[in-house]
Amino acid sequence: MAILIDGKKVAKEILENLADETVFMNPVPGLAVIIVGEDAASKIYVNSKKKKAAELGFNSIVVELPENVSQQELLNKIEELNNDDKIDGILVQMPLPEHINKNDVIEKINPLKDVDCFHPYNVGKIASGNKPYVYPCTPKGIIRLLEYYDIEIEGKNTVVVGRSNIVGRPMAQMLLNMNATVTICHSRTKNLGEITKTADILICAAGKANLITEDMVKDGAVVIDVGINRNKDGKLCGDVDFSSVEKKASYITPVPGGVGPMTICSLMVNTIDLHRIQKNI
Amino acid sequence: MAILIDGKKVAKEILENLADETVFMNPVPGLAVIIVGEDAASKIYVNSKKKKAAELGFNSIVVELPENVSQQELLNKIEELNNDDKIDGILVQMPLPEHINKNDVIEKINPLKDVDCFHPYNVGKIASGNKPYVYPCTPKGIIRLLEYYDIEIEGKNTVVVGRSNIVGRPMAQMLLNMNATVTICHSRTKNLGEITKTADILICAAGKANLITEDMVKDGAVVIDVGINRNKDGKLCGDVDFSSVEKKASYITPVPGGVGPMTICSLMVNTIDLHRIQKNI
Repeated sequence: MAILIDGKKVAKEILENLADETVFMNPVPGLAVIIVGEDAASKIYVNSKKKKAAELGFNSIVVELPENVSQQELLNKIEELNNDDKIDGILVQMPLPEHINKNDVIEKINPLKDVDCFHPYNVGKIASGNKPYVYPCTPKGIIRLLEYYDIEIEGKNTVVVGRSNIVGRPMAQMLLNMNATVTICHSRTKNLGEITKTADILICAAGKANLITEDMVKDGAVVIDVGINRNKDGKLCGDVDFSSVEKKASYITPVPGGVGPMTICSLMVNTIDLHRIQKNI
Repeated sequence: MAILIDGKKVAKEILENLADETVFMNPVPGLAVIIVGEDAASKIYVNSKKKKAAELGFNSIVVELPENVSQQELLNKIEELNNDDKIDGILVQMPLPEHINKNDVIEKINPLKDVDCFHPYNVGKIASGNKPYVYPCTPKGIIRLLEYYDIEIEGKNTVVVGRSNIVGRPMAQMLLNMNATVTICHSRTKNLGEITKTADILICAAGKANLITEDMVKDGAVVIDVGINRNKDGKLCGDVDFSSVEKKASYITPVPGGVGPMTICSLMVNTIDLHRIQKNI
């Protein structure tokens, strides 16, 4: 029976330590989250980010722009925040409306304030084996979890399922930079089960309920489930068939309460790190 | 017996077509190669690049700087070339002397003139699944070879051995962007042979003579050998034990005459592409 990786607990510990640091900071770290339109899920994410940042005493602002905002107006707002020294980190909540070019928006953010590590300059730093200003939140949170549970990465066979810019791609790069052997699988992969079965550490970020079943997992594997899906009964679930896979894995993350809490935790850590870099402290 | 992938022939064809285009270009494309110090191998590479560019009628210049040049002098020279509109592509020959920070130098090059695609901005474009201004020369040359021989990439299991910023890392990203399943192996990989044996397309860029032996290759695999080594007799050889592996592979590149000629060919193509972008033609 696998050991449960308790992201909720680890995130709570990290955030408590952060609070001890930030309480004495003056000026305080600043996080600006931009949301465009009325997407319900996005609003929930944005509010929880704002709330957590406020709890830590950050200068926490949310910029709400209408669905029909022009790209130029959005870029102007980012430029304004780039030049606002009370703001250390800028996050643009995805998805954006069709009429806005996502890449233009990401590239408008000053790489020094790129709290999500989406700017090509920062992405390229990781992909070149160098350090970006900060690492992307979810992969960073996953590495923190592996380290917390003393799970070795160097020399391990790791398989990442999913190639999003938010999780899969940077995760693969970061594992490679930590001397893991890395395989990245995706929707066009032909023999997924054969490949996932080779993984010492399996990271699933495909966004497909029950994609990973027991027969696709090696005995004793570490299984990290990044998926957040709803099953037919509307119940929250990951990409992994938890009940069967937990019998085979050595470690496994639950959904919810696994990777999820680490993402917002990393966002807070990143904001403080960018604050330190920009304020030279 | 494997079909020999004739990089020399393919490169020659591409360069002949380029010559037909460039002869009518006015202004002509400009390539500047900077070399620091007296490294013999570097001088040979630089001269062949200069010669090829000159053959194509480019504005082809080589900037030779002494081993003890200061980093600031080097950065100033790059800045000068960034502002020189007779120069479309800038290449700094590696390796650089110890006292110079390689990353500072690479990041000084205007991404629009980054003919090798080493700048983090361009690397990050590829790593985000987007198009850089131009692709790195050696991986680009390998893709051209695979396309020339109608070797399908999408959905194939590809294994890249070696994680350099010149070949291994960008090669893996480019294969992923072409919908291959990609595994990247390196010096810390524990079961290299088991992994290379799963490859439909195996790309070896480790720089180790005879690293890849027959027992590490799947029947009918496509084997691309990027290595340039010398064996004990001082004879040029790749990373692959050619004589035994060619019996098992469906396609294989020789060393020399395989990938090598494609690299300089890509450099010429990239210079013209950057010329077109910067001159809007």
